[in-house]
Amino acid sequence: MQKLTTIREIFRNRDNYLGQTVEIGGWVRNIRDSKTFGFLVVNDGTYFEPLQVVFHDAMANFSDICHLNVGAAVIVKGQLVATPKAKQPFEIQAETVEIEGASTPDYPLQPKRHTFEYLRTLTHLRARTNTFEAVFRVRSLIAYAIHQFFQERDFVYVHTPLITGSDCEGAGEMFQVTTMDLNNVPKNEEGKVDFSEDFFGKPTNLTVSGQLNGETFAMAFRNIYTFGPTFRAENSNTTRHAAEFWMIEPEIAFADLQDDMELAESMMKYVIGYVLEHAPEEMKFFNQFVDKGLLERLEHVRTSDFGRVTYTEAIELLEKHNDEFDYKVSWGCDLQTEHERYLTEKIFKRPVFVTDYPKDIKAFYMKQNPDGKTVAAMDMLVPGIGEIIGGSERENDYDKLLTRMKELGLKEEDYSFYLDLRKYGSTRHAGFGLGFERCVMYLTGMGNIRDVIPFPRTVNNCEL
Amino acid sequence: MQKLTTIREIFRNRDNYLGQTVEIGGWVRNIRDSKTFGFLVVNDGTYFEPLQVVFHDAMANFSDICHLNVGAAVIVKGQLVATPKAKQPFEIQAETVEIEGASTPDYPLQPKRHTFEYLRTLTHLRARTNTFEAVFRVRSLIAYAIHQFFQERDFVYVHTPLITGSDCEGAGEMFQVTTMDLNNVPKNEEGKVDFSEDFFGKPTNLTVSGQLNGETFAMAFRNIYTFGPTFRAENSNTTRHAAEFWMIEPEIAFADLQDDMELAESMMKYVIGYVLEHAPEEMKFFNQFVDKGLLERLEHVRTSDFGRVTYTEAIELLEKHNDEFDYKVSWGCDLQTEHERYLTEKIFKRPVFVTDYPKDIKAFYMKQNPDGKTVAAMDMLVPGIGEIIGGSERENDYDKLLTRMKELGLKEEDYSFYLDLRKYGSTRHAGFGLGFERCVMYLTGMGNIRDVIPFPRTVNNCEL
Repeated sequence: MQKLTTIREIFRNRDNYLGQTVEIGGWVRNIRDSKTFGFLVVNDGTYFEPLQVVFHDAMANFSDICHLNVGAAVIVKGQLVATPKAKQPFEIQAETVEIEGASTPDYPLQPKRHTFEYLRTLTHLRARTNTFEAVFRVRSLIAYAIHQFFQERDFVYVHTPLITGSDCEGAGEMFQVTTMDLNNVPKNEEGKVDFSEDFFGKPTNLTVSGQLNGETFAMAFRNIYTFGPTFRAENSNTTRHAAEFWMIEPEIAFADLQDDMELAESMMKYVIGYVLEHAPEEMKFFNQFVDKGLLERLEHVRTSDFGRVTYTEAIELLEKHNDEFDYKVSWGCDLQTEHERYLTEKIFKRPVFVTDYPKDIKAFYMKQNPDGKTVAAMDMLVPGIGEIIGGSERENDYDKLLTRMKELGLKEEDYSFYLDLRKYGSTRHAGFGLGFERCVMYLTGMGNIRDVIPFPRTVNNCEL
Repeated sequence: MQKLTTIREIFRNRDNYLGQTVEIGGWVRNIRDSKTFGFLVVNDGTYFEPLQVVFHDAMANFSDICHLNVGAAVIVKGQLVATPKAKQPFEIQAETVEIEGASTPDYPLQPKRHTFEYLRTLTHLRARTNTFEAVFRVRSLIAYAIHQFFQERDFVYVHTPLITGSDCEGAGEMFQVTTMDLNNVPKNEEGKVDFSEDFFGKPTNLTVSGQLNGETFAMAFRNIYTFGPTFRAENSNTTRHAAEFWMIEPEIAFADLQDDMELAESMMKYVIGYVLEHAPEEMKFFNQFVDKGLLERLEHVRTSDFGRVTYTEAIELLEKHNDEFDYKVSWGCDLQTEHERYLTEKIFKRPVFVTDYPKDIKAFYMKQNPDGKTVAAMDMLVPGIGEIIGGSERENDYDKLLTRMKELGLKEEDYSFYLDLRKYGSTRHAGFGLGFERCVMYLTGMGNIRDVIPFPRTVNNCEL
């Protein structure tokens, strides 16, 4: 049955099919009929545009077809004919319409506009609507573009672990993983949880980042990337936070912060180019119905040389506009989205890397600059969203790293594997993290992270 | 610094570099020196073969280089010259050798043979050895080949959720996910765990399969695939079980069991072909040192038409050889690895699909055959391993599915989303699951799942 011609194939290679008999299978998005003939609008999920089917009363099952409900699955055979006077370029004049699976009058996706809120209650069906069909196809293409970008450059894809015995950077609240009976948690003599009874014999969590594991592989393969799920048990109910999301974390050895920024810039441009090329219909739809300036903005990002500014310079530039900000900036503070967007939209008018942040607002593993105050970190800011990528050169000096860990109260024994990398053939190296969902939001213009994840997980929400 | 030429580039395009000055960065695998000159064997992780570097006493840091320890990182600049009389095709005659990062005399990976058991205690370093460099590069290539196979065919990649509120097929023991304080689990008035206090407000687990979620997307996009982590809290300490592993689960609509088998067969052949083409050095190494018959076996699989046999026929064939088996077969029993291998290796002498298993040993969602006894399931068996893929056509009839669920004691309300797919435009559809690690073991000949996962998780083992 997979031999049925896809609607994508018909649209992409129309000249091979016009005037020919084709057979398609798909779902009815809309239906109109009169006494002697009718129209089905059929979408088969392979292509953003549907295909119109004309059926007529010479068919034995004409009445059954007329009584189809929206959502029904059909297999249609007929001639593909050009329709130069109509909105759509061609239609199928059906010889047969087989009903593969009926639908019901109460099918929840009637041909009218539904709110995103309503559709979030229908995660098992919403991919059948225009917007979510477009979002999830583009999501798939972005994922592949990222793999292709790195694989073309011979980066090794590393599956870093999901269940972890350490809390990595100590960032964010974590989910615990256990097989113990929660009704009757085993306790030791001191009345504390007896983790020796647990599956791994110790406390374990879901990972918040694969970076430290990734670094171990960069010290073997030189260039690697991760692409996998990460988790945050943050109790925040916003349009930008999910408890489960995917991250891409490349790590490059024999590399410094400049190399890191060049890699990040090339990657973003590559992914944008890939999506514009492979999903033009979907991108046009987003531009028209979701985010009016989208295509112009992406095209601009793709063709700009990204700006570079140090954090210290950025603060000087922003301080002049402190009256325009809710949060006033001064050296040492973390940049808020309003500041990031001001920098990239108003001051630089293009994407910009902010580098060399104060060490006290950044992670322990970032390379300390000679000034003793800043670290070789970088954030990529893009118009419309602010920070989209965060990265750094890593501290590759054993003593400096250990001293910094001690200052921050990290236990040396928890990081002995990480320190080993600085003991045995340490190299300058760098990497960054890209939140995949944030990237999908950026490329589609969708405003809520719940609408770019197939089955989103947020506080009090874990359906399906 | 990323401008350093990779050793892969030098080997792949040697004619561009012979006689030229090149600059590489990498790690010292071996070192020999005499009074006036010496050799470094340098691997930069981008290519399986190392590059030999000749250095000499005209260098200011000659003595430092002589005293390098194995594992040190160096940056070497010099002329690439052909060495027609040597084992290796060329070497670098160094002008400069910069020491990027030293190593120590107690570096755990000395240039001698280490056991896999020993290397499992060094997950942060083992990718620097020949075997694990080969395994993890091939793992990366297999992952990419799978993406490429599906994307070339316009399948949509779906990220199904990791944290789940249902136990899907009810298969296997599951890991619980919670943010509750395990020392003090909140209880309700009946003394039971009060999950309203938990992050999601209900009990949640780590997924064992993305299939049911995947089906919802196949009913929107027609052809989809998942590729993500899955979890089993099975307390089994074998060479084939891990608590955390990756699965690929394609799902195709307007498709039956035949389409499913064709897809699985094409995919396996594609992946084998990709790896043979893109990792010839690694595959030769596996064939020589890990699994002698590997290349011949893979080539055979790649070029065979896979056999097809029903379970009922297979049992008849196997019963004749019951004296050769530890477990005797008879209709109704599940096939053990010994039976599977006998079928594919001795009887068919090529990969074979076994179809139409008894419904009582298969999952509730499989399409019931008209005989009332069997379901439209298929397992792909391959020489050397037995089952590598399991799949089925899905029951697409609402009433039959519901009846079967009730027979098995599944709660209708837990599967209302799944039943909806049979209510609104149901189509014939099918899919299969491929355990990614099993696939990596099969293509590399590695015998222990712990040795094909970067950071394996098994009972009582969750390091790094």
